[in-house]
Amino acid sequence: MNYCSNCGNSVELKIPDGDNVARFVCPKCGQIHYQNPRMVVGCIPVWQDKILLCKRAIEPKYGKWTIPAGFLENNETVEQGAIRETMEESGADVTIVRLHVLYSLPQVNQVYAIFLAHMKTADFDAGDETLECRFYETHEIPWDKIAFTAVHFSLEKYIENLKTNDTQTYLGKLIRKYE
Amino acid sequence: MNYCSNCGNSVELKIPDGDNVARFVCPKCGQIHYQNPRMVVGCIPVWQDKILLCKRAIEPKYGKWTIPAGFLENNETVEQGAIRETMEESGADVTIVRLHVLYSLPQVNQVYAIFLAHMKTADFDAGDETLECRFYETHEIPWDKIAFTAVHFSLEKYIENLKTNDTQTYLGKLIRKYE
Repeated sequence: MNYCSNCGNSVELKIPDGDNVARFVCPKCGQIHYQNPRMVVGCIPVWQDKILLCKRAIEPKYGKWTIPAGFLENNETVEQGAIRETMEESGADVTIVRLHVLYSLPQVNQVYAIFLAHMKTADFDAGDETLECRFYETHEIPWDKIAFTAVHFSLEKYIENLKTNDTQTYLGKLIRKYE
Repeated sequence: MNYCSNCGNSVELKIPDGDNVARFVCPKCGQIHYQNPRMVVGCIPVWQDKILLCKRAIEPKYGKWTIPAGFLENNETVEQGAIRETMEESGADVTIVRLHVLYSLPQVNQVYAIFLAHMKTADFDAGDETLECRFYETHEIPWDKIAFTAVHFSLEKYIENLKTNDTQTYLGKLIRKYE
């Protein structure tokens, strides 16, 4: 951030009065420009004993497999966002069962909220950001070709949960350590 | 948003190619300024059979009771943010038990993630944004003086959960209807 989005003046990085974190502040109009993590919302779409995965048609992780997910938009609930992203990326029409995973990626300022969802029908149709969609039984999941750690975690916990069959939400995080 | 935070030029509201939502776009440098919901993270701090509530010292809802919570910051996990906010607002040092509530407020572009947390000791100390903190037994909760619907929902579900004793995360939302 270089300029104030309110008045166009150059911003300064400083700790505002009463705060303890450096923010971009406009010395002209006084506006404090807070920057906060974004949410990624998505689903594990389940049909009978299979789940629907999507092969990515965009970077990052082009050609890797993922679950349908994307950034939560303003003016929607997390459930609405997850259902919308699932429709956009996979064409699957789903009903939310429960929140399955909340996963933090503090180094990229993202939080994933991944839902367990039932497909209303077996229909799907790869969207613009997807090369193909296909059903996987749990023993067929291509673990070495999964796009993101949050997706890997969500699928691991899905399988774990099939055995325990409880209704908990799993908390996860990725903290990268630099040497 | 009036000006591009990257180059300082005036922005335009338009639907970018390949998108279906209007965004603030800079016609000079091309940057698309996405705007997304922010997360509010907090805890229900539990000590024995009591919970710790905070009386707000700031607007909105000055003088009303709430649980310690605030905006998730960049570079922290949701759990870290909830523990930090609990310490800042109530002085309580807590251990996260589980995610208790995920609550969407689409009209103000917020998502609350409220954790159930155990206090390590009975110590507390009201922070700058808090007039006072005190323990409440569940039958003492001042329902008509609770600050926010997401907090009201979280406390209701806390009490409901004491009876069922399961480990689920509750999903909630507030959709205001204008007549």
